[in-house]
Amino acid sequence: MSLLVIGTVAFDAIETPFGKTDKIIGGAATYIGLSASYFTKNINMVSVVGDDFPADGIANFHKHGINTDGLQVKQGEKSFFWSGKYHNDMNTRDTLATELNVLADFDPVVPAAYQDCEYLMLGNLMPKLQMRVLDQMTTRPKLIVMDTMNFWMETAWDDMMKVIARVDVLSVNDEEARQLSGEYSLVKAAQKIMAMGPKFLIIKKGEHGALLFHKDQIFFAPALPLEDVFDPTGAGDTFAGGFIGHIAATNDASFENMKRAIIYGSAMASYCVEKFGTERIIGLTAEEVEDRVKQFVDLVQFDMTLV
Amino acid sequence: MSLLVIGTVAFDAIETPFGKTDKIIGGAATYIGLSASYFTKNINMVSVVGDDFPADGIANFHKHGINTDGLQVKQGEKSFFWSGKYHNDMNTRDTLATELNVLADFDPVVPAAYQDCEYLMLGNLMPKLQMRVLDQMTTRPKLIVMDTMNFWMETAWDDMMKVIARVDVLSVNDEEARQLSGEYSLVKAAQKIMAMGPKFLIIKKGEHGALLFHKDQIFFAPALPLEDVFDPTGAGDTFAGGFIGHIAATNDASFENMKRAIIYGSAMASYCVEKFGTERIIGLTAEEVEDRVKQFVDLVQFDMTLV
Repeated sequence: MSLLVIGTVAFDAIETPFGKTDKIIGGAATYIGLSASYFTKNINMVSVVGDDFPADGIANFHKHGINTDGLQVKQGEKSFFWSGKYHNDMNTRDTLATELNVLADFDPVVPAAYQDCEYLMLGNLMPKLQMRVLDQMTTRPKLIVMDTMNFWMETAWDDMMKVIARVDVLSVNDEEARQLSGEYSLVKAAQKIMAMGPKFLIIKKGEHGALLFHKDQIFFAPALPLEDVFDPTGAGDTFAGGFIGHIAATNDASFENMKRAIIYGSAMASYCVEKFGTERIIGLTAEEVEDRVKQFVDLVQFDMTLV
Repeated sequence: MSLLVIGTVAFDAIETPFGKTDKIIGGAATYIGLSASYFTKNINMVSVVGDDFPADGIANFHKHGINTDGLQVKQGEKSFFWSGKYHNDMNTRDTLATELNVLADFDPVVPAAYQDCEYLMLGNLMPKLQMRVLDQMTTRPKLIVMDTMNFWMETAWDDMMKVIARVDVLSVNDEEARQLSGEYSLVKAAQKIMAMGPKFLIIKKGEHGALLFHKDQIFFAPALPLEDVFDPTGAGDTFAGGFIGHIAATNDASFENMKRAIIYGSAMASYCVEKFGTERIIGLTAEEVEDRVKQFVDLVQFDMTLV
């Protein structure tokens, strides 16, 4: 099924206890698109870059079957740039630089061929831009997934709430769920957030896994325990890409299938953090993806019927 | 199979954001014994109390099928007392008072009938007392499980390491695993700790669940997402009680059966935190235990074969 992905395509400069990078390609739409490409092939990306964005970066999207007709290239302007440094625990980071550049006056345009796409992934971006994309859809997608972050809760609350009211699945991390709901308990937070509109809620807990809520049902998937987390940048977006990619590929947005989608997303995220940026997720084989999924099965499955 | 449990039997005074208690019955051996009693009936407790310990507290152990021949009652002395106050996040607490009392010169004596027990649970206690119990076993138990804590890492390192070298399963929390191994990554920490002696390692992560390591295998069980954690006191011991109780009942210390034991332990712990102290775990029915286990199955199980 067709999948539309919006979000940033950007440059990142990352420093972790293991090393640092120069400007490398990053951005929410980049990670989501690449990750989803392991599951489904009819993907379109709506985003914006400057003329400093390398041709081989765009060629890499094409190699992954991602259509970039919706990727605006602004001549004479620079791509969005983010720089950050992770602390030793890898769970917290300092932002060293944020240069909006082309993002400052970005007006997303959805190509006509994608205005009736079945699956829509609103990657993290200014809520009013997520809304602009929603408004261009001529047919309501079968499933709309939205990722957002605390920054918009603090700077664009009203816009964000309007988008949240229109989506099927919201994806936030645990601290964001608490901030959004005013509840410390994630179970209570989930009930309040689902009352804002989304029928499904994903709460990402980083190294502690992810929770999927729907009505009074809860599903939990752990993160894979790793010897080293090399660079967590993009892990949440890579997770989202695997999630929506599996759902689009199977054309099944049931709670049962979302459980599998969460496992695929977790498997992709566990690869993402093994190297800097997108390095690990650009050249995976189907076997590697399945091997990782198998590790998740071994990690959590037990047989109570044998007792 | 017969199970020997050692650890404290004590008074606790607890303050949480939900309220506070006077002196109530607590202690590692109390929680372990009560929790294990839902799975196996041949349980002996080795511990010590003062003459201030209420007769109905001991009667309650008997009601749960726990033999107290190894529970010393010291006339003219007072029971061990601990008082603590939990912070709002329930993950951290301040110790307000620790009165060793009878524990100061406790010399554990294992009744002759229990010196050949098949399963031994060394609850958290001074390592040299755990060793004293080990030394009294005439037959090496089929499985020895040891729980310990950071306090002993700081005050009794050498004694603790000698006990660790002699047990099959070590149970610590994530911060303790890091302190014990000097490794931040729990995967690396687990390998180092298993090299110290234990063939199995349980790392408890509180609200984030628990990991079981054995050679290069890892099993993960989440904690049940709860609307409220009312009082976390005793949750780790209750977990350990469910774990060893299930293993003793099934007489099966395989990795596959330990997975189920971890789930039973997690189910018992999820009940423990719903009320103050032992209140919730003294009157559970078999149906309640099975219902909770069913919730864990629903929480983590997914079917990849349908894809």
